[in-house]
Amino acid sequence: MEEPAAEQPVEPREDTRQEDFAQHLREIRELFARQKRVETLVHNQDMPRHELVEQLVHKQNEAELARKLEHLHAADIAYILEALPLDERLMVWDLVKAERDGEILIELSDAVRESLIETMEHHELKAAAEQLDADELADLAPDLPSEVMEDVFRSLDTEERERLRAAMSYDEDAVGALMDFDMVTVRADVTLEVVQRYLRRFDELPDQFDQLFVIDRDDHLEGVLPITALLINDPETEVAAVMRKDALSLHPEDNAETAAQAFERYDLVSAPVVSAGGKLIGRVTVDAVLDYIREAAEADQLAHAGLKEEEDIFAPVMDSVKNRWAWLAINLVTAFIASRVIGAFEGSIEKLVALAALMPIVAGIGGNSGNQTITMIVRAIALGQVGQDSERRLYRKELKVALINGLAWGGLLGIIAWWLYGDWRLGAVMTAAMTLNLMVAAAVGVAIPMTLQKLGRDPAVGGSVMVTAVTDSGGFFIFLGLATLFLL
Amino acid sequence: MEEPAAEQPVEPREDTRQEDFAQHLREIRELFARQKRVETLVHNQDMPRHELVEQLVHKQNEAELARKLEHLHAADIAYILEALPLDERLMVWDLVKAERDGEILIELSDAVRESLIETMEHHELKAAAEQLDADELADLAPDLPSEVMEDVFRSLDTEERERLRAAMSYDEDAVGALMDFDMVTVRADVTLEVVQRYLRRFDELPDQFDQLFVIDRDDHLEGVLPITALLINDPETEVAAVMRKDALSLHPEDNAETAAQAFERYDLVSAPVVSAGGKLIGRVTVDAVLDYIREAAEADQLAHAGLKEEEDIFAPVMDSVKNRWAWLAINLVTAFIASRVIGAFEGSIEKLVALAALMPIVAGIGGNSGNQTITMIVRAIALGQVGQDSERRLYRKELKVALINGLAWGGLLGIIAWWLYGDWRLGAVMTAAMTLNLMVAAAVGVAIPMTLQKLGRDPAVGGSVMVTAVTDSGGFFIFLGLATLFLL
Repeated sequence: MEEPAAEQPVEPREDTRQEDFAQHLREIRELFARQKRVETLVHNQDMPRHELVEQLVHKQNEAELARKLEHLHAADIAYILEALPLDERLMVWDLVKAERDGEILIELSDAVRESLIETMEHHELKAAAEQLDADELADLAPDLPSEVMEDVFRSLDTEERERLRAAMSYDEDAVGALMDFDMVTVRADVTLEVVQRYLRRFDELPDQFDQLFVIDRDDHLEGVLPITALLINDPETEVAAVMRKDALSLHPEDNAETAAQAFERYDLVSAPVVSAGGKLIGRVTVDAVLDYIREAAEADQLAHAGLKEEEDIFAPVMDSVKNRWAWLAINLVTAFIASRVIGAFEGSIEKLVALAALMPIVAGIGGNSGNQTITMIVRAIALGQVGQDSERRLYRKELKVALINGLAWGGLLGIIAWWLYGDWRLGAVMTAAMTLNLMVAAAVGVAIPMTLQKLGRDPAVGGSVMVTAVTDSGGFFIFLGLATLFLL
Repeated sequence: MEEPAAEQPVEPREDTRQEDFAQHLREIRELFARQKRVETLVHNQDMPRHELVEQLVHKQNEAELARKLEHLHAADIAYILEALPLDERLMVWDLVKAERDGEILIELSDAVRESLIETMEHHELKAAAEQLDADELADLAPDLPSEVMEDVFRSLDTEERERLRAAMSYDEDAVGALMDFDMVTVRADVTLEVVQRYLRRFDELPDQFDQLFVIDRDDHLEGVLPITALLINDPETEVAAVMRKDALSLHPEDNAETAAQAFERYDLVSAPVVSAGGKLIGRVTVDAVLDYIREAAEADQLAHAGLKEEEDIFAPVMDSVKNRWAWLAINLVTAFIASRVIGAFEGSIEKLVALAALMPIVAGIGGNSGNQTITMIVRAIALGQVGQDSERRLYRKELKVALINGLAWGGLLGIIAWWLYGDWRLGAVMTAAMTLNLMVAAAVGVAIPMTLQKLGRDPAVGGSVMVTAVTDSGGFFIFLGLATLFLL
């Protein structure tokens, strides 16, 4: 059984949970607004000792702010910092007590964290980093200057250093990156009574503490002892008699998404992480999983609009331009190709200018339909619902859906085109082109994610651009091609 | 102190967590494939007693399948059911023991759940529903035939009936819909020793059991007693001395998203739900929050592609057509409007056919850029980072980003257009049109979500369609308009 002293005592937290954090933000914004009003007032009236007055009010406001911040949870301060423009953000950051810097920094989004770290001195960063556990430090490390990290590393004891090295060695999508080291371990041959006495020696138990890990002399995981088992069973019972040997355990190299699905499916609060040899090396808790799921969902959303990373909404203009340009460049290339397809049919358009007005409809609806298909397929792949055997079935189904939608909407548009331009043949070409383009969209909507998956790539990335590229160029080609063949 | 008998005993769960569920799916698929191979074989060789052989093999396979299913976690069976096409899905469903129907049904996605409920008899559904807790029953209720629900309702005791009525009365985005009733409550004036003795009388404690709720004689919540406090403190201590009075509590009408953010921010495992009068009525646990976050993220993703709801990938073709048609109809209308804008300039296109080839580039890049802006703003609004005071700042920033991107990419395209068509004035119009359309995109990208928010609507819904509609029609209008003014 390990000594309690070996455990990381969990920092006591300020608790203002019941209070409304939106309210805090409002109040802090008001303080800043009041500050600005005072400044304007003082300057406008051109009062004699205006600077003194200003300073006084400023000091008062600052004191009020500092008091307010002291009582806030680190996560709430992080939230407030993210919601403030840079100048006000830095002012609030200066008012936060230095010993809370570390816990606040790890709660911040990357972009905002960077903006604060840039303004901090070497010794401040070192002090902040030293307040953190190895797993938290590993999250912060990529944003810290390397000299600071070297200093911090030197100040750690051997065990912490080993943990930090381990935590930093894992890919950010691996279970190792979600892992912490706040475990409480016991031996199988002691009684629950002894376990209870042991626990009573702790000043504080880890967060998300729902089970103890049962290990042998060599740190091999033998089972887990849920706290509920500890509570309902007779104190004289041995741990071995009530521990669970079949509990889910993770490996540090496991995919974080797979681990997240296991947490969701089995409603876990924590899970042990073991090495290939079966040694207990850490645990994953549901709060880390929750953060991971939220971040993954947000990254998906941003990626969908071609935003490389979370953008601080108060970021300098050039940072935003950099975050967005790559996507625009890619789309420019695909749009240019589509434009050259049209260029090839300029002769046809010159003869029948109605084609120019109708062609974007064919391309646009194809893009929408293709994106519906790809969204369905990517989702089904992510949920593991698509096997080798279902591929043909999917093609058949999507093509049928496209055929029906094409005939219905294409038919309607064909009639409208006929009515607008008084040429039934133009209407027929419109209907045929829409149906064909929707079927092309369905085919590539299935083919692209399936192919990406077979190539071992993430089926969610880039599929949408490719589908749109095909349906744009394809739509123009099909429509203008059919028109050239049958109308001219 | 409540009697343990009043608590819902938690169903013991089959546990196969360590096993790989993907492996199970593979095996089950193999069983089906084997079955099919045998059928083909038997039929092809035209063996005499082929039906008998077939039946034999079939029975063997079924027995193997049933054995396999028996050892699987309900969530894993749900996962397998979702991954199978309808015929195989129904076969697996028939093999599942009837007493597990309830727990499996609540784990299923809506679409797949419906497909199974359709095939079930009245008495089967009633039996399945009766296995569930009130909060689970409330989730299932909308999919059950009303006669079944009436029968089930009649079979409940008064307390359960009241709970079911309460759980069903909340909006699906309210905390009430996430709530369960598996609470363990104690009085403040007993010692921890007494609490421990009390807990030992339970056969099983609720899942996600990290705290007891401390209530007074009238069920008012006085505080919470974290299990960790129970474990580390002296057994002689009174609950009142170690309970936490400042813990976060939720109201059933609170927004589920706000509650989810609180769970994320403060790393909660469970939180009490109290009525406006302060009475304890239930609790929310992190597993419900996890499911909620995942479902909300998925609904967002689907909505982005205009899919109304999760679509079972093996759904009948007509169900898919219905799920997708509304979006296509909306896009058809916006595409048609854009087409009429072009139609208004047919005279210009006839004179200068290059316009037809270049115009989709202007519209397309505008759409991409506008979607980037709207994604940023919607995200910032969701995170509460956008106040009244930041609106003007956001417009200024987005317009600047658009100006830079417009001049850069528009400039490049202007040069290409000049080179392609040998007319520098055409290039200049191209550059001007792209810059203007990107600025329109930025302005509507900020304005639409901000306006939706002010109107009390969800800023994430429909914004993308509106932006694209404006940048398409606007892009065509700006480009063709400028060309008509300056080139013809």
